[in-house]
Amino acid sequence: MQKRIGLIGAGRIGKVHAESVAGLPNAKLVLTADLFVEGAKDIAEQYGGEFTDSPEEVFDAEKIDLIIVASPTGTHIDLIDSAINAKIPILCEKPIDLDITRVEALADKARASTSPIMIAFNRRFDPSYGEVHRRTAAGEIGDLEQLSIVSRDPAPASNEYLQASGGILRDMTIHDFDMARNFVPDISKVTARGFNHFSKEIAEMQDFDAVSVILEGQSGQMIQITNSRHSAFGFDQRLEAFGSKGMLAAENRTETTVRHYSGDFTEQRPRYMNFFLERYMESYRNELSEFIRAIEGGEVSYPTFEDGRKALILANAAIESAQKGLTISVRY
Amino acid sequence: MQKRIGLIGAGRIGKVHAESVAGLPNAKLVLTADLFVEGAKDIAEQYGGEFTDSPEEVFDAEKIDLIIVASPTGTHIDLIDSAINAKIPILCEKPIDLDITRVEALADKARASTSPIMIAFNRRFDPSYGEVHRRTAAGEIGDLEQLSIVSRDPAPASNEYLQASGGILRDMTIHDFDMARNFVPDISKVTARGFNHFSKEIAEMQDFDAVSVILEGQSGQMIQITNSRHSAFGFDQRLEAFGSKGMLAAENRTETTVRHYSGDFTEQRPRYMNFFLERYMESYRNELSEFIRAIEGGEVSYPTFEDGRKALILANAAIESAQKGLTISVRY
Amino acid sequence: MQKRIGLIGAGRIGKVHAESVAGLPNAKLVLTADLFVEGAKDIAEQYGGEFTDSPEEVFDAEKIDLIIVASPTGTHIDLIDSAINAKIPILCEKPIDLDITRVEALADKARASTSPIMIAFNRRFDPSYGEVHRRTAAGEIGDLEQLSIVSRDPAPASNEYLQASGGILRDMTIHDFDMARNFVPDISKVTARGFNHFSKEIAEMQDFDAVSVILEGQSGQMIQITNSRHSAFGFDQRLEAFGSKGMLAAENRTETTVRHYSGDFTEQRPRYMNFFLERYMESYRNELSEFIRAIEGGEVSYPTFEDGRKALILANAAIESAQKGLTISVRY
Amino acid sequence: MQKRIGLIGAGRIGKVHAESVAGLPNAKLVLTADLFVEGAKDIAEQYGGEFTDSPEEVFDAEKIDLIIVASPTGTHIDLIDSAINAKIPILCEKPIDLDITRVEALADKARASTSPIMIAFNRRFDPSYGEVHRRTAAGEIGDLEQLSIVSRDPAPASNEYLQASGGILRDMTIHDFDMARNFVPDISKVTARGFNHFSKEIAEMQDFDAVSVILEGQSGQMIQITNSRHSAFGFDQRLEAFGSKGMLAAENRTETTVRHYSGDFTEQRPRYMNFFLERYMESYRNELSEFIRAIEGGEVSYPTFEDGRKALILANAAIESAQKGLTISVRY
Repeated sequence: MQKRIGLIGAGRIGKVHAESVAGLPNAKLVLTADLFVEGAKDIAEQYGGEFTDSPEEVFDAEKIDLIIVASPTGTHIDLIDSAINAKIPILCEKPIDLDITRVEALADKARASTSPIMIAFNRRFDPSYGEVHRRTAAGEIGDLEQLSIVSRDPAPASNEYLQASGGILRDMTIHDFDMARNFVPDISKVTARGFNHFSKEIAEMQDFDAVSVILEGQSGQMIQITNSRHSAFGFDQRLEAFGSKGMLAAENRTETTVRHYSGDFTEQRPRYMNFFLERYMESYRNELSEFIRAIEGGEVSYPTFEDGRKALILANAAIESAQKGLTISVRY
Repeated sequence: MQKRIGLIGAGRIGKVHAESVAGLPNAKLVLTADLFVEGAKDIAEQYGGEFTDSPEEVFDAEKIDLIIVASPTGTHIDLIDSAINAKIPILCEKPIDLDITRVEALADKARASTSPIMIAFNRRFDPSYGEVHRRTAAGEIGDLEQLSIVSRDPAPASNEYLQASGGILRDMTIHDFDMARNFVPDISKVTARGFNHFSKEIAEMQDFDAVSVILEGQSGQMIQITNSRHSAFGFDQRLEAFGSKGMLAAENRTETTVRHYSGDFTEQRPRYMNFFLERYMESYRNELSEFIRAIEGGEVSYPTFEDGRKALILANAAIESAQKGLTISVRY
Repeated sequence: MQKRIGLIGAGRIGKVHAESVAGLPNAKLVLTADLFVEGAKDIAEQYGGEFTDSPEEVFDAEKIDLIIVASPTGTHIDLIDSAINAKIPILCEKPIDLDITRVEALADKARASTSPIMIAFNRRFDPSYGEVHRRTAAGEIGDLEQLSIVSRDPAPASNEYLQASGGILRDMTIHDFDMARNFVPDISKVTARGFNHFSKEIAEMQDFDAVSVILEGQSGQMIQITNSRHSAFGFDQRLEAFGSKGMLAAENRTETTVRHYSGDFTEQRPRYMNFFLERYMESYRNELSEFIRAIEGGEVSYPTFEDGRKALILANAAIESAQKGLTISVRY
Repeated sequence: MQKRIGLIGAGRIGKVHAESVAGLPNAKLVLTADLFVEGAKDIAEQYGGEFTDSPEEVFDAEKIDLIIVASPTGTHIDLIDSAINAKIPILCEKPIDLDITRVEALADKARASTSPIMIAFNRRFDPSYGEVHRRTAAGEIGDLEQLSIVSRDPAPASNEYLQASGGILRDMTIHDFDMARNFVPDISKVTARGFNHFSKEIAEMQDFDAVSVILEGQSGQMIQITNSRHSAFGFDQRLEAFGSKGMLAAENRTETTVRHYSGDFTEQRPRYMNFFLERYMESYRNELSEFIRAIEGGEVSYPTFEDGRKALILANAAIESAQKGLTISVRY
């Protein structure tokens, strides 16, 4: 039986999710909602289903089996709340909200929800990151001691986006906080340093364009995160899990396997995949596919409301650490 | 407008093509034909459209815009003939036939056909091979002097398949002959040596389980082909174009980018993609997509009936060379 | 003219330096001194020259053109002082001393010395690290924004050694502090976190077996250092310089270029070179060669007493940072 | 005890051997002979020992323990003969001679020689090629089925050299014939094709500037050799041993491990090592070191006069094959 999908938000990320749905035989887009109704109409024309300018219409358990939320961050909390009320499983884009007090206010209700809530930390579902996680969990590198995450965007988003983003640590690093928690769920200390390497605009927003973060797990694991808002050579996405018996690494991806050799160099590869649309296309599809498996009763681990809440707490701790020059002990 | 696809042949390769059609927004499977009607029914159920046990039904230009032939080799010639008569574009699996006299008999008619005929040498459409070809043609390595093609299957097909295959040179190396011709269309000399490395069954069929071939282009280019019917580490598919100013190489592919490091080794990658279904999935889709572009009038280069004929002539010359211990001058 | 070398210290590092001297046509070992005279005798027998149990004999400018100090850390200050007095160039192993007050006490005299003093941060002279430095300085990656240094020893030294080492940050990370200063001479802030991942003995010494350090350059550069006292897959020595226009990386080295492919994996390389004797053999030789060039008046940049002093100040700041959970502003 | 080395021939290869001797603690250059006495004098000044314009002086077993021959090919036969008479071990550069009848004339005497004769196929002693050989012999890839050797020089030698070289197959490919025989001693069939890709001068000499060779072992192994007299990206030296259970490959070498990433590309490595002086420096030293071990009674396998003779027979068979367009059965 195909799951009937209701999509809220018809912007760039909304389209990514519509594409994911199209790629899965057991899912079907039936309704796209956006206040900007032209966007919803475009998606409906390309991927099927109806469209509306009223998100409320999506919360109808008779018609919709699974809601995907890709609308602006400020709308997430209320939409999750509505999905809980309507008893419809919801896959909501990260972050839950920029304000932790609003997240805490919904936390008890989310924990008690009878319908599943997934926060869309899609990188957990990247085939390479997933394999490193699986093999690390299986003991292939002994005890996990150090985790290094490199994440550099090709170029900063628009100033408009950045201004509403909550800052690099809540907007960009939050993916890495979740990846860290995927390997080491209990993180107890956060040390962060922020940098302004290239963007006057970002500096003027009192935000950083690069950060370096050290996390410490309850059992003493070291986790390092390296971020930059730009990268000349493409979207730089790497991970190394170092353990007592070895290391597992996920390397960058290129579109082709072509290497070029000339009078000046050898083994030159193309640029890395440009950005998340290319690099994490499979992750988005796998994320949805796994959430459907979970809804159908499969034993599937996925990032929950609680994971979204904890990632935001880590981001806030990192902001405090960077501001004060202090290592922060985290309380959840 | 979506092209209405008629598929003849519902076996393993038939399914690959049905999958390709499903992956293209501008194509739609409308009819699948197979004498073994259960196979056709399975495909219709999974990918849509109707099914029949009568291939003749497919040759109806009112209903079908493009025919894909994935039936046994012995049926190809007649099906191409019918497609020419029906004036329907046809994408036919390789080889055209095992018997060159049957191919020659249709050659003039095929040349005069008003509807396009494509022989499914899908590897030309692999993103990496395609990029090497494009950049070589653009002069990036100067004059092309040497081309090295390595092609090793993971394991031999069933004895039943092998016995009907026409031998390794006509069945497996034919892909490499076409790839050679993709880079160097005019090949004038063929030298081949055959080997029996591991399979008694193949030896008993008077066939080889490995071959080494040297081709010579009209302008003196050297082309080397290395084949084996088995490969412990997966489907080994590589290509190097060496020129006066450098080299372009297409390397093997793995499912993930994970590398493993232990007390005994470093940088260990997973096995290569298992076989053509995994490795050339994109090539099949691109092949169909490009053929549709060609039909719609795009300036697209693709392997024609003539290319299929010439690849078979090279295979026959290689068989003669290996038998006689002679370099063979080819006449087309 | 061959430089006449006097070597003080005939232990493991003393032998490395004797080997370097033997590999250079313009240097000649003439005297080896060690209180443990058997060691000095062994080196003299293998590499030539005389031997003595009296280091004082080495400070004779009539006989010796260049002194190499490879004796225990506690002896360095006095030996450098003697070399200044004797007006003989000295290449002294790192660190200058574990006690910054002893280093400061000699600093003015060292600055005023008419004979060159080099502190043996040999990694600056590694061909790959050196090339990354040279090309970064030449602007190949635009503005240097981020520097990542990974340095993991294969296994901890003996407890005896570790107890006298001054701790991981002064003993091991000090190489990375110097490498950081090689790229970004003016470092203004230090943030460090220490970890105890595997060694009870090291924990009992109140030392760390792993550290993560974030340095900040005067112009805002980010530098990350990752250390561990063990590494299953060999001596892990890597460096990445990330800039506004690209990245330059120095990767690990293996003894051979062999790759192994099997039914379970592909492209498996051997373990990395075991430890510094293998990995940095060329660096030791280049270091001495460059110092001789400097003595002969060449325009050579090399780590001076001042560089040794500053590296120790960074190590001390890192210790304070790790203890207090604070980012430390450095004053030199 | 240091072996006293007598060197005949003070040209480019002579200097390489003098350098090898200097790098070995158990060898010492005592006499260099060259008709062009200035060359002999230069080597003696740089590497020690005496010099002479009379090669005869070297054949004095009282003074010389091991003779190295690096003089022109035409002199080799007589010098080996003299070394046998003088009962002095001799390491002679390849090839033994360009004329197989002259080689055959000495063959019986060489077989009966009480003093060892080594032909300098140094590539057997390259650490990477040696490791592939050792692990293949140990069964790591099961039965050896296919061996691929790529060998491309950076640029052709001078016309003067080429004219006296005996042609690419006897001069350059002979290294690959020996490498093939190192893995598969009994080679029974030779198929070769010659090409003229870029050099008018070489074409005018009736020689090839590129060749492709297929060898067949007594037990059916396939061996492929790919040669070119030029390579834009440096000395291209690779080897793959493919067996029933996997593959072992030796890849190219670069001076450093630096990789460059920019807006246009990633993972770009430097050019490969320029030529044999750089690439095979270690092989030359290992070759001499192993020959000394053999002389001292060690169980060491090394290329003998017989190996030199057989490599030449393969070269001659390849020339015949290329001329006639025939596979040649070899008789030794």
